[in-house]
Amino acid sequence: MKSIDDLFLHFLQDVYFAEQQLVKALPKMAKAAHDPALQQAFTAHCTETEGQVERLKQVFDSIGKPAKAIACAAIKGLIEEGEEVIAESKPGAVRDAGLVACGQAVEHYEMARYGALIAWAKAGGMKEPLALLQATLDEEKKADRLLNDLALKSINKEAAVAKAA
Amino acid sequence: MKSIDDLFLHFLQDVYFAEQQLVKALPKMAKAAHDPALQQAFTAHCTETEGQVERLKQVFDSIGKPAKAIACAAIKGLIEEGEEVIAESKPGAVRDAGLVACGQAVEHYEMARYGALIAWAKAGGMKEPLALLQATLDEEKKADRLLNDLALKSINKEAAVAKAA
Repeated sequence: MKSIDDLFLHFLQDVYFAEQQLVKALPKMAKAAHDPALQQAFTAHCTETEGQVERLKQVFDSIGKPAKAIACAAIKGLIEEGEEVIAESKPGAVRDAGLVACGQAVEHYEMARYGALIAWAKAGGMKEPLALLQATLDEEKKADRLLNDLALKSINKEAAVAKAA
Repeated sequence: MKSIDDLFLHFLQDVYFAEQQLVKALPKMAKAAHDPALQQAFTAHCTETEGQVERLKQVFDSIGKPAKAIACAAIKGLIEEGEEVIAESKPGAVRDAGLVACGQAVEHYEMARYGALIAWAKAGGMKEPLALLQATLDEEKKADRLLNDLALKSINKEAAVAKAA
């Protein structure tokens, strides 16, 4: 990596891999969730993520590079943690609270990635990718806020009652 | 994991592992950085992270559990990505920009983790851990902002010039 373009491409390939993995992981999280609103949040974000994969293809196109994914250890680890929560819990509010936390960790990771890509696109004068990346960043922030709201409004309270049971 | 206490303990052990790994990784990131302000940011955050490890020991203590770390795949992956940037670049602004992005991804991950732990401590009526966890969350947010400022003020601009060279 010798230039900001190299750096941009590397992290673009990394996040392209991440979004593809999430398209596979989110339906499993939706299936494992007990709360209907949480199921719906994961399912809707899966559809959104499919759109983000398409947007990334457009970003590759705009910089004249083929869309290519490179394995990203971080997203593998983040998804693995969600699988761990599912394996070590039964359906219900405690598992849901864990799934929310894992989902938010993924959103935070993506916010960091898209934030960096946007900053580099600006610094490197890459105009075309900017709006595409910003649209996805906005979606990730919204998904994070929704998970947060679900946890604070009901899921965590129900999980705390499960504690007393 | 049957209760919010189980969930809290699991994620506490996970983030305890993460902070311990970061105490080892941050000096390597400082050494690999070219910009003196970035070196200083990583070094100062390493000292801060040592304090966060101590704070986590107090949290374990407050819930009457021994301080124990469980392997966390996400932080391993996040650290690995920083090592990849170092391996695939030479010292200079492009590498620095990559290191900032990796550092911010770590901070975002930790913000998600501490955010969840704080929410569960509140829901579960665990009063003692709250101030400790909040103090660390504040530090992670500050560290993220500092990295962001360094990138936007100088590092990304220098990386963009390296592109033209």
